Amino acid sequence: MTSTLPRTVDPARLQEVLDGRWAHVRRDAREQLGDPKYAPVYGESVQEARERITRLAGELAATGRVGLGFPKQYGGEADAGGSVTSIEMLAYGDLSLMVKAGVQWGLFGGAVQLLGTERHHDAYLPDIMSFALPGCFAMTETGHGSDVQQLRTTCTYDPETRTFDLHTPHEAARKDYIGNAAKDGRMAVVFAQLVTQGRKQGVHAWLVPIRDADGNAMPGVTIGDDGPKAGLLGVDNGRLSFDHVRVPREMLLDRYGQVAEDGTYSSSIANETRRFFTMLGTLVRGRVSVGGSAGSATRMALDIAVRYGEVRRQFAAPGRDREIVLNDYLVHQRKLLPALATSYALAFAQEELVGTMHDLHTAVHEHGEEVDEAAQRELESRAAGLKAATTWHATRTIQTCREALGGAGYLAENRLPQLKADTDVFTTFEGDNTVLLQLVAKGLLTGYRDAFGSLDGWGRVAFVADMVRETVLERTAARGLIARLVDAVPGRDEDVPLRDRGWQLRMFEFRERHTLEGAIRRLRRNAATDGMEPFTVFNSVQDHVLRTASTHIDRVVLEAFVAGIERTTDPAARALLEVLCDLYALSTIEADKGWFLEHGQLTPARSKALTGTVNALLGELRPHAVTLVDGFGIPHAWKNAAVLEEEAARQEAMAAEDARLTTEAGSAAPDDTAVALDVPPGQ
Amino acid sequence: MTSTLPRTVDPARLQEVLDGRWAHVRRDAREQLGDPKYAPVYGESVQEARERITRLAGELAATGRVGLGFPKQYGGEADAGGSVTSIEMLAYGDLSLMVKAGVQWGLFGGAVQLLGTERHHDAYLPDIMSFALPGCFAMTETGHGSDVQQLRTTCTYDPETRTFDLHTPHEAARKDYIGNAAKDGRMAVVFAQLVTQGRKQGVHAWLVPIRDADGNAMPGVTIGDDGPKAGLLGVDNGRLSFDHVRVPREMLLDRYGQVAEDGTYSSSIANETRRFFTMLGTLVRGRVSVGGSAGSATRMALDIAVRYGEVRRQFAAPGRDREIVLNDYLVHQRKLLPALATSYALAFAQEELVGTMHDLHTAVHEHGEEVDEAAQRELESRAAGLKAATTWHATRTIQTCREALGGAGYLAENRLPQLKADTDVFTTFEGDNTVLLQLVAKGLLTGYRDAFGSLDGWGRVAFVADMVRETVLERTAARGLIARLVDAVPGRDEDVPLRDRGWQLRMFEFRERHTLEGAIRRLRRNAATDGMEPFTVFNSVQDHVLRTASTHIDRVVLEAFVAGIERTTDPAARALLEVLCDLYALSTIEADKGWFLEHGQLTPARSKALTGTVNALLGELRPHAVTLVDGFGIPHAWKNAAVLEEEAARQEAMAAEDARLTTEAGSAAPDDTAVALDVPPGQ
Repeated sequence: MTSTLPRTVDPARLQEVLDGRWAHVRRDAREQLGDPKYAPVYGESVQEARERITRLAGELAATGRVGLGFPKQYGGEADAGGSVTSIEMLAYGDLSLMVKAGVQWGLFGGAVQLLGTERHHDAYLPDIMSFALPGCFAMTETGHGSDVQQLRTTCTYDPETRTFDLHTPHEAARKDYIGNAAKDGRMAVVFAQLVTQGRKQGVHAWLVPIRDADGNAMPGVTIGDDGPKAGLLGVDNGRLSFDHVRVPREMLLDRYGQVAEDGTYSSSIANETRRFFTMLGTLVRGRVSVGGSAGSATRMALDIAVRYGEVRRQFAAPGRDREIVLNDYLVHQRKLLPALATSYALAFAQEELVGTMHDLHTAVHEHGEEVDEAAQRELESRAAGLKAATTWHATRTIQTCREALGGAGYLAENRLPQLKADTDVFTTFEGDNTVLLQLVAKGLLTGYRDAFGSLDGWGRVAFVADMVRETVLERTAARGLIARLVDAVPGRDEDVPLRDRGWQLRMFEFRERHTLEGAIRRLRRNAATDGMEPFTVFNSVQDHVLRTASTHIDRVVLEAFVAGIERTTDPAARALLEVLCDLYALSTIEADKGWFLEHGQLTPARSKALTGTVNALLGELRPHAVTLVDGFGIPHAWKNAAVLEEEAARQEAMAAEDARLTTEAGSAAPDDTAVALDVPPGQ
Repeated sequence: MTSTLPRTVDPARLQEVLDGRWAHVRRDAREQLGDPKYAPVYGESVQEARERITRLAGELAATGRVGLGFPKQYGGEADAGGSVTSIEMLAYGDLSLMVKAGVQWGLFGGAVQLLGTERHHDAYLPDIMSFALPGCFAMTETGHGSDVQQLRTTCTYDPETRTFDLHTPHEAARKDYIGNAAKDGRMAVVFAQLVTQGRKQGVHAWLVPIRDADGNAMPGVTIGDDGPKAGLLGVDNGRLSFDHVRVPREMLLDRYGQVAEDGTYSSSIANETRRFFTMLGTLVRGRVSVGGSAGSATRMALDIAVRYGEVRRQFAAPGRDREIVLNDYLVHQRKLLPALATSYALAFAQEELVGTMHDLHTAVHEHGEEVDEAAQRELESRAAGLKAATTWHATRTIQTCREALGGAGYLAENRLPQLKADTDVFTTFEGDNTVLLQLVAKGLLTGYRDAFGSLDGWGRVAFVADMVRETVLERTAARGLIARLVDAVPGRDEDVPLRDRGWQLRMFEFRERHTLEGAIRRLRRNAATDGMEPFTVFNSVQDHVLRTASTHIDRVVLEAFVAGIERTTDPAARALLEVLCDLYALSTIEADKGWFLEHGQLTPARSKALTGTVNALLGELRPHAVTLVDGFGIPHAWKNAAVLEEEAARQEAMAAEDARLTTEAGSAAPDDTAVALDVPPGQ
């Protein structure tokens, strides 16, 4: 197969497309964060790491970079998308600093900004932005991390003293894993069940001092340390318990629910569950940031592994003067290139998500528009789904990259160990990924209810009475283009070339729709079964339900890739991205070929051909592997991996030695029998 | 589906079967290693960890446990299988100690024992066993980890001085990742290219002092430190370079190659490559130990995750008083139970491997029998394949377990972070897993050559002239039983129940044979293609070639599971293992169902039924999940995971709180609408 690709592609053209709408924020970060002090440090003790990160957080605040997401009247830039992009760029450096910044200015500052009102903003935002007031986001409890609507901490209003009584009834209700708590936090946004006039009003948030100016715990507040963790050593995660702590009435962050002096509760949102989700919905930025940061860490790992694979050699082959470069091995390509394609795909999807978030946020918080509830729900679902996809991709890919470096990948000096350890928590924090997939699935199933009937609770049996045969999936970016591509697919599926984009899109759509319809059919059947308890109705199809989410996310991501290509003007860059998109689409189909075969969407012959096509794509892309990581635009100074500095010189030394021996001995061609399959059984 | 299983199974009966032939070694370890000093320690600095592990290694030596594998005349027990089992048991404790012990008594001591001769044994084995002489196994170089036949360190004999000149020509040739080198090692077994009388004789090993009694580097020896690593902080990995270091002639470990005083080289094995592989073959114990240790670490992780999942609750469901236990969720079962089944399967396969290794070792080294070359080659292939399978299974499963604990899984106090970090290197040390699969594949393809024709090197074109249509795979354990099961499969494949063991075995066999034949056919076609260079002949089918290895290993493992069940006498334990084996077999087929569909071995309908059957098996096994981890026989004191002590009490506290609220309020039944799918969008 001959490649359709130009010999060389300018990586700057790829970078332009990836940089996207917040290119100026990325440019600025590349210039400012190049300072070696932001690079990760290895082999520190927990205490050293915490002190360094605290100091860096203060220095970061002094640069003014952290104000992007805050209102202009407090010196911010009211640029929600920019603030998330800025966090994503920080994630190329020390991930502890990224998380520390995310806790301080995203979660803590964001909660004060979005759940509080003007008096909170006036009193606290300036100090939050300057890091004079380090704070915590105290939501998760030891007993409830995923189901935070069921938090056990209570905050009971006493009209007598006009204060709330904040209380931790038992250890399961203590706040846990709270960033900034173990060492730095002076205040915390604490989530608890609001009780007033003898009635629970659901979870609300209060701004609560936890340490005095000397750093001692406030009366009634017990602060614990989560101790050493798998990674993120510079983040001081801790535990908070409250023993009947008095909290002044005005410290309730009361944008969505107010308590009058006499204890009367009021809210513009009557339904408690809806109110809770509305409050949480404003905090979607945190989840978007985690997805973005996971993307940066993954690209960093791929950058290191691809560059190493380009110079590292192992095993001779007959007729070759030097040993084979790792990137030339098919199985090495199989490890790295589909992951690289997926990283591009996810970067485009993330860019789209950030834009949507920014526009919705700006409409409501800057222009005072009404919340578009459907759009907000869609945003939350997209943020949840992409967070799960990008963080699992990060965990898998960083592991692959670490193994692709062999023993060198286990040494801290080559960066992979920290990337792996620091990002590991991404799969479960800001929402456990499995639980997030369930949230996405719920959104998809709820979409059915909205369109076709009522679906009032899993326990109540009544699923939509008639299943529709055809579901029209809402297309995402580049709607028109995608419709044209799909409609243009000629003839029967078996005859369409595998690299036809319309066919690929159709396969992703078909799988999503069919999976969704099947899940609904099975849920309905279960619900109609006499004596089946509600939990079993759901649980017996939980795997199927989660698949509706993952197939949905796959489609969203592919469509974002297609839209990204559409924005690419440079012909060579565009041609390369087209091939990369083929690899993303076809390796995704290949990984799930069992399903497509089961459902008659691939014949056995076509399924086998798919493997050959993916291998051919790897061959086409292989010469461009370094260009593709160049396109990420990661400054060399941020990489901090010793092998990138040293390996090329080592290979040169060996080549020079071989040349000298050849001259001396007349011949030093590798032994014909010592070929790639001749692998020693020893270490 | 109603379960065929007894209500309760005695885990002691499972443990008996798993404990197997070296049950006495395991029993002994459970008694002696229960001392808290062997438990892993969290949050140490590199220096603290190294000092503690060095101290523990000395204390371990003092117990006499480390002598199992050494000859009786030096106070050992000449029990190769016991020594590997002992390492496997150490792996339940601090993995740094396991690796330190593996380096000292397995790699270093083993090399002196197996590559050296009596004078080396007399002079050094007693001090090696007592840890008075800590040593290194210096094979890997920075430039050559996988292809160690191409090491660049040279050791040139000078008849004048009757010494060797050991030299590191450039940085790529320095010894790297060497355990015991950075701090403790006094001597090293150094592998280098032997040159004498102007001729290279290939890689040999010398015993070389690297530090004097005061711990200073010997003249000409440069010792470096690999610095912080992803894990195994207590192991002092380092780098060694030699600047024309004089090594006395008698320090050559000369069992397989001798240099006379005048420099004349002699060996009983004429072919250099064959000699090298023979030398390395004696060191197979290291690879077997890594596989065994990976198994222990994986079982430890599963033990923690399954027990946590049994008490941890999250999300209410209509009609249930308390929140749902994690292990009741189908998707949680999907994560943990197939991994548990695979762990049983691999444990049986490992047990079989250790037995084979022990018997071969004992025949040659204790009874002085000739090496059975075919059996030795088969052992090395099996060791390589199982090492790859168990270590990748460990990496995947420990990650899954860590995620199954949510945020708690990220805290060092819950053990998973260390298990993950410490075992991570297993996939690339003692042989990179991908390279090992290639070794297995080579063995399978070579088997063809031996049986059917000549195959003299990838570069020489001549693959077997005629492909045989039917290949008889050599069956492993319980040959007769497996043949009976396969032969007893009634009728057409589509009609056979999925849980028929014979059908499952037939599917594994068919896949292996078909994959192997296909790889050979493609290699032959490539080799016959004019102008295709040798590397491309191989590389264009590398993915297919590696699949021959993985499908082979899968079959070996399934057959070992079947043989293990056959040894189980307790009817209840046996019934449980039968169901667990179904889960292993069917989830393995399910994971590769695309292949079985492509090759007409599953109809689409049967493939869909497979998913339902796997889910049904999960339901059958779910009540026995804790019994199955109990069967591993891991003493509670070794687990050292805080959640196992604390979570049950927390759940009781919440239940008590709910009961109190119910009494107070008259009702506290969960809100009907707050069901499992209602997942908050916030953290």
